[in-house]
Amino acid sequence: MSRDEDVQPIALADGRSRAVIENIQPAVDGGRFAVKRVVGDEVVIEADCFADGHDMVACRLQWRRAGEPAWRSAAMQPLVNDRWRASFVVDSLGSWEYTVCAWVDPFQSWQHDFARRVDADDLRVAAVTGAALIEQAAQRAARHADAELLRAWSRELAQAAGDAALSTEALARIGSDSPRAAVANRYPDLRHAFTHPQVFPLTVERERARFSAWYEFFPRSASPDATRHGSFADCEAWLPYVKRMGFDVLYFPPIHPIGRARRKGRNNTLNAQPDDLGSPWAVGAAQGGHDAILGELGTLADFRRLVQRAAELDIDIALDIAFQCAPDHPWVAEHPQWFRKRSDGSIQYAENPPKKYQDIYPFDFESDDWRAMWEALAGVFEHWVAQGVRVFRVDNPHTKAYAFWEWVIVRVRALQPEVVFLSEAFTRPRVMHRLAKLGFSQSYTYFTWRNTKRELTTYFTELAQGPGREYFRPNAWPNTPDILPAALQYGGRPVFMARVTMAATLCANYGIYGPAYELLENRALRAGGEEYLDSEKFERRVWDRAREDSLAEFIAVLNRARRANPALQSDAGLRFLAIDNEQLLAYTKTSADGGNTVVCIVNLDPHHTQSGWVEIDLATFGMQPGQAYQLHDLISDAHYLWQDARNYVSLDPQRTPVHVMELRTRMKREHDFDYFL
Amino acid sequence: MSRDEDVQPIALADGRSRAVIENIQPAVDGGRFAVKRVVGDEVVIEADCFADGHDMVACRLQWRRAGEPAWRSAAMQPLVNDRWRASFVVDSLGSWEYTVCAWVDPFQSWQHDFARRVDADDLRVAAVTGAALIEQAAQRAARHADAELLRAWSRELAQAAGDAALSTEALARIGSDSPRAAVANRYPDLRHAFTHPQVFPLTVERERARFSAWYEFFPRSASPDATRHGSFADCEAWLPYVKRMGFDVLYFPPIHPIGRARRKGRNNTLNAQPDDLGSPWAVGAAQGGHDAILGELGTLADFRRLVQRAAELDIDIALDIAFQCAPDHPWVAEHPQWFRKRSDGSIQYAENPPKKYQDIYPFDFESDDWRAMWEALAGVFEHWVAQGVRVFRVDNPHTKAYAFWEWVIVRVRALQPEVVFLSEAFTRPRVMHRLAKLGFSQSYTYFTWRNTKRELTTYFTELAQGPGREYFRPNAWPNTPDILPAALQYGGRPVFMARVTMAATLCANYGIYGPAYELLENRALRAGGEEYLDSEKFERRVWDRAREDSLAEFIAVLNRARRANPALQSDAGLRFLAIDNEQLLAYTKTSADGGNTVVCIVNLDPHHTQSGWVEIDLATFGMQPGQAYQLHDLISDAHYLWQDARNYVSLDPQRTPVHVMELRTRMKREHDFDYFL
Repeated sequence: MSRDEDVQPIALADGRSRAVIENIQPAVDGGRFAVKRVVGDEVVIEADCFADGHDMVACRLQWRRAGEPAWRSAAMQPLVNDRWRASFVVDSLGSWEYTVCAWVDPFQSWQHDFARRVDADDLRVAAVTGAALIEQAAQRAARHADAELLRAWSRELAQAAGDAALSTEALARIGSDSPRAAVANRYPDLRHAFTHPQVFPLTVERERARFSAWYEFFPRSASPDATRHGSFADCEAWLPYVKRMGFDVLYFPPIHPIGRARRKGRNNTLNAQPDDLGSPWAVGAAQGGHDAILGELGTLADFRRLVQRAAELDIDIALDIAFQCAPDHPWVAEHPQWFRKRSDGSIQYAENPPKKYQDIYPFDFESDDWRAMWEALAGVFEHWVAQGVRVFRVDNPHTKAYAFWEWVIVRVRALQPEVVFLSEAFTRPRVMHRLAKLGFSQSYTYFTWRNTKRELTTYFTELAQGPGREYFRPNAWPNTPDILPAALQYGGRPVFMARVTMAATLCANYGIYGPAYELLENRALRAGGEEYLDSEKFERRVWDRAREDSLAEFIAVLNRARRANPALQSDAGLRFLAIDNEQLLAYTKTSADGGNTVVCIVNLDPHHTQSGWVEIDLATFGMQPGQAYQLHDLISDAHYLWQDARNYVSLDPQRTPVHVMELRTRMKREHDFDYFL
Repeated sequence: MSRDEDVQPIALADGRSRAVIENIQPAVDGGRFAVKRVVGDEVVIEADCFADGHDMVACRLQWRRAGEPAWRSAAMQPLVNDRWRASFVVDSLGSWEYTVCAWVDPFQSWQHDFARRVDADDLRVAAVTGAALIEQAAQRAARHADAELLRAWSRELAQAAGDAALSTEALARIGSDSPRAAVANRYPDLRHAFTHPQVFPLTVERERARFSAWYEFFPRSASPDATRHGSFADCEAWLPYVKRMGFDVLYFPPIHPIGRARRKGRNNTLNAQPDDLGSPWAVGAAQGGHDAILGELGTLADFRRLVQRAAELDIDIALDIAFQCAPDHPWVAEHPQWFRKRSDGSIQYAENPPKKYQDIYPFDFESDDWRAMWEALAGVFEHWVAQGVRVFRVDNPHTKAYAFWEWVIVRVRALQPEVVFLSEAFTRPRVMHRLAKLGFSQSYTYFTWRNTKRELTTYFTELAQGPGREYFRPNAWPNTPDILPAALQYGGRPVFMARVTMAATLCANYGIYGPAYELLENRALRAGGEEYLDSEKFERRVWDRAREDSLAEFIAVLNRARRANPALQSDAGLRFLAIDNEQLLAYTKTSADGGNTVVCIVNLDPHHTQSGWVEIDLATFGMQPGQAYQLHDLISDAHYLWQDARNYVSLDPQRTPVHVMELRTRMKREHDFDYFL
């Protein structure tokens, strides 16, 4: 029987190894993929560790940076039902790994039994056993002083066991010497220890992977002069504006030469005029491909200077990596084997029959020359990393082979562990999760189309509490250049305020496509569609940032609230609140240490004032029934005094459709109340 | 970076393999342990299978008996959200295994696109591509006739593509030839197929592993003559009684010579008298150990005859394997190295300080001679298997090394795959589950101490729906020789009826310790304890089976109901019903095919009539609001007509505290109603 053969050698090899380990958490697909954390995080690991019988089990968490020869370790502490826990802090970027080791501990078992013995003869017999175990610990002791201490204790206990004149109580005291037992427990007998064979990977990124605010912007529109194409120099002039709004990632659509062949005209028309700029996602022309820069934007030196200027403001310039080629991309001629051929010998353009996208050639990931193609694509990331780029938004990663992403992300991070990858995959759930597992730092979400209270509650509960919480970091966008959702087309300013508030507070990572967003752009190309009219994808736009109705200051307030409140800097700690109005959404976010809580209320109805009674679970925040507590609205700067679990809220969309309120449960001084009573 | 090195070779090797497979279910601990089924079961397997992009993915389930060189396979069918499903039937006992294989299918992708093309030129170009794909399928075709058919289709399609006179519609028809496409799909292009590397184990047992009724009985008490020790010949005379009650496993406590040294007296006293029989669990004496038979019971030939007689009635004789030794067990002298030594050189008896069990020596699973010890213990099972035993109840398996059980169960099953193992571990949840994962067919449960509606509902919902459902088969016992629960001590006959009914209907496997149970034995050794007074563990008892108040006939009715209703033969399909009385427990069990449903109502209060309104979810059983349906009480033979979701029930504990009713939703003839209207 083959199972017999399968199992016997394993079991026989470990015959005397009695401890077992199950259900190590966190783990993504049993350790196939990495759990994600950021530098400085405390990584809490739990496992079920137990053995047969009644002997005492001990276990330790083992961890190291990947590649280190030795494990670091910490004793795990028992919870209930054979569950154990320990943690470690990840203090540097890159790949880490952990596992758990467990064993039946003879010395601890002896301690446990010795303390319970009452019969004098038994105690003497047990004391001799204990003396031998302590002597063994002395032999394992790494520090000379510990060895000496243990040898002395062992001798003392053995002599006491043989001293018939010594009282049972005195003997028991000598054997139950907690300080010396603690020393002995530093040197456990690991001969039969079992180390879990699965090593669990952990990716540690910089904090921006977990907490970031993105501003998407077309450099072509950066020029203040309506007649001139924007340049990187123009973009520099926008940096203070972006900084004032509080964004820390400034993301550009592709900056490469744009294909001439089959170029699209304004509003996605097929008959481009000579002066039409085309879509930046039609990457490549005679001037170059994915490592070149569109001439109108400037030179590589200009780009590097922009990246440097942004860095001085703690802003990352994010590039858009769209792995596809315009027909005149140099690679099409140089490496025709990287593309599929049609039966007529022409190169297969992108299509989804009957739709055709003849200006785009997708790569063929089943190409026989895939190794060289992977190298070339990895080279694109490496080229831009060399220019100082640390954040990449990847266009449609779900149309490229998964194995490639797993390989290339590891490779780029080995070069530069600060790199953050955002997966732009608006597709099926399993596919989006797979990309996150493969290593993307952040992922676009369905938030863009989640509008009702039920939709939002279900979706964000799943994101915060589902298995994806260990690897899928949502990045919520209320709009993108491809998506002007119906709600924004018809809801007016209140919807723009509500949607960006939800993105910024439900998600630690969020972004907007501006200035279309803060300038309330809501004109669609076609009714029923989601394409912008006069989209910047196909033409330059001139934006009047000084408009009075701009949401720039509102967004700046939101981003300040995010920076001031740790609760808003992580996706954990989200909890929806009961509120008796289907048009009102209420939720709290609480920081990991419990020290900071933000209460958000959103009026989902852009047309009418909505009011209701919101229920706060007092016990969650350590409050008593009847207790009063303060809420400080970070948008309006108003202060509210609430009492007990149910409190009244009312939101007029024509003023501000949201509350974003810091919860203060403990008043520092009595007169803190005076301020608003 | 070591992660880099870890991942690159894997990814590179599979560069063009674009399909991925996740979350194959069922799986126990990611495939570390076997899923359990019985012969004849349809094993349904699901997995997430998908690829990048928009190409069509196909996948197949692969399975085989362990050790077979080739996989059998079946195409998986898509459900929703990239979930796929297929099944196979296990038609023989033993170890099986399965995995999933997925691939991007070029021919199906072509079919999908071809059917959507409208442009005539595109259609011609695509037809040429299709002809080439069909020709490739022809080359892979195993059957000559299929190859011929595909070659003809390929030629036809290629010619049609080149025929400018042919209409677009005609060309589309030739390419969209479903019958011939089905043939092509039998020979997919698997060059880039991905087979999940984990092979998932599956243990197939006989039906009795899933559905059994156990009767525990002390052979020492089998004699009808109060002055004589019972023998196997006496046990033969009990077989018709056991058969009439409907049990199919007759389980004996250990049948071996009983230790003389430190033998326990009646009622677990320390001063045994010369004529005291001792505890059967004190295994071994001068006459022999685990492979010997206590002289008073008879010879090996007597035992074999009893096993044979029982088999003729389709009753399994189950032996109790208690791996521990009395001090005079031959192994203690022959293999002292299999036991722990105390520091005074004596052998360590069982203890849990300050408690001592000096009549029992446990084995030391950390013995340096563990290999020989494992062989000897395996030999015990093998010896009794050679005598025809096919069911073992294992005493306290949780005090022996887990690795030993995994090894020995595989070994015994390789010898005789019919063997069923019951784990007698009343201990912590993780430990009980581990033993089940290691291969035990059935497991004792906490049912013995679950009394209230909430306790019973929570526990049995977890057993039926939790992850354990794939490997943990509960076996519910209302009593054992070690446990006379408080409820039975004080509740009288109604509790005996209610508890055995719940065991027999909540669990497909259940057992009682008789005749103590059917004869309502409720005298405890000490108030507040669970030990029987005058326990058969330490003395013979004489039972008057003819007593008028015996529950034997009630139990016979219960077991007939179990045999007649497939719903009661599996632990799946359990659903608790709302009923507005805390003393009434209501639940349904439904067979896998939905064709059989049993409704059970239990009055948990032994003192008062309880009544309430029970709610049936009509939709679950395919019924309409307002519909009438029949319930046939299998205990009382009464028929009830219920209508709509809420119906009234009332149970008088002094009559029968339970309803066990077959639900009949579809009346065969109109006049089926007449009978009880």
